[in-house]
Amino acid sequence: MTLRLHNFFRSSTSTRVRAALNLKGIAYDYVPYVLRNGETRTPEYLAKNPQGLVPTLECEDGTFLTQSLAIIEWLEETHPEPALLPGDPDGRARVRALAYMLACEVHPLNNLRVLFHIRDQYGADDAAQKAWFTHWVTLTFDALETELAGSAATGTFCHGDRPSLADICLYAQVWNNRRFAIDLGQWPTIAAIFERLDGIEAFRDAAPVNQPDAE
Amino acid sequence: MTLRLHNFFRSSTSTRVRAALNLKGIAYDYVPYVLRNGETRTPEYLAKNPQGLVPTLECEDGTFLTQSLAIIEWLEETHPEPALLPGDPDGRARVRALAYMLACEVHPLNNLRVLFHIRDQYGADDAAQKAWFTHWVTLTFDALETELAGSAATGTFCHGDRPSLADICLYAQVWNNRRFAIDLGQWPTIAAIFERLDGIEAFRDAAPVNQPDAE
Repeated sequence: MTLRLHNFFRSSTSTRVRAALNLKGIAYDYVPYVLRNGETRTPEYLAKNPQGLVPTLECEDGTFLTQSLAIIEWLEETHPEPALLPGDPDGRARVRALAYMLACEVHPLNNLRVLFHIRDQYGADDAAQKAWFTHWVTLTFDALETELAGSAATGTFCHGDRPSLADICLYAQVWNNRRFAIDLGQWPTIAAIFERLDGIEAFRDAAPVNQPDAE
Repeated sequence: MTLRLHNFFRSSTSTRVRAALNLKGIAYDYVPYVLRNGETRTPEYLAKNPQGLVPTLECEDGTFLTQSLAIIEWLEETHPEPALLPGDPDGRARVRALAYMLACEVHPLNNLRVLFHIRDQYGADDAAQKAWFTHWVTLTFDALETELAGSAATGTFCHGDRPSLADICLYAQVWNNRRFAIDLGQWPTIAAIFERLDGIEAFRDAAPVNQPDAE
């Protein structure tokens, strides 16, 4: 039995894990869920993942791993090559900080359940949801652009010349941004890194549009 | 020169880093910022931390580390004892997943800049802000309680009998919850772990009320 990834094509946390698996050359079974049909709220799925969120990685021994960043750190520890984190602690701290800028400051505010909540609580229509989404993306992408453009540690990718955990989060977030047609041109360093990533098969194969359940 | 922690007493991400430093017995200088006075939006501070967020850890070589979880992973790598993560990859994945449940699903939705944004955008008054805060805490704390109460891996603390990164995030979030007087009694496992943590000097000394800039 191989690894099984319980996920959803459009979910950016799912995109992150798919990219990490692909970069490390790890085969996995793709198990799709339709979020809006409540397929992750069933008792069967909640037993795998009490939060009812995707992704969940089902291991060969029947263990279920949750939270995309925890899954990727586990992949890094159990399948070290190619490395998704640099070898030095300062470099690792920088890559993780860049990743968490996106994973802790952008994505949590912009996922579907939050957009539904502002719609239900505050009557936010499509335009208001786009404004909300754009606000949080812009706040962090401005800071991320400053950091990436201003640091000697930035290379072809977010940190040096090998794709890292930071690039995985960036790639997934930029795909997410496309749902609201956010123009990447205002952040030239981010845009250039995204284009390079999108030219790599492991990333491209992880993109929402290239999944079996893509609409 | 020792480490300098640029932080704010009430910030729960600052509480996390203070607890990690204390648990590892690392001395540091405490540099307080008053967020509402814009002290983290000055050019001087933005040069340290382009997001204008706390905490920032200033290292002895002049490096600035940002993002609380990246700082704690760095502390774990550079000062391994006592360990804040288990030794086995599955255990590390569980601890990180528990930590990220709080760090990626609760805190980002409930920090001050989000509460101010729903006030400014949607006219959310104090009661509406409390409802918003409580909604996101409840959603994740319900799942966290299920996971902690149902797993054989839970011990005196979130994972076994030694405080971990998960406990650090839990401790900081429960302090944050107190701003909105959220009753912890509905989550008995979480409440019991919090009480045990609060009896440990390293945690207690990291609590918002015990900081020099506490109001």
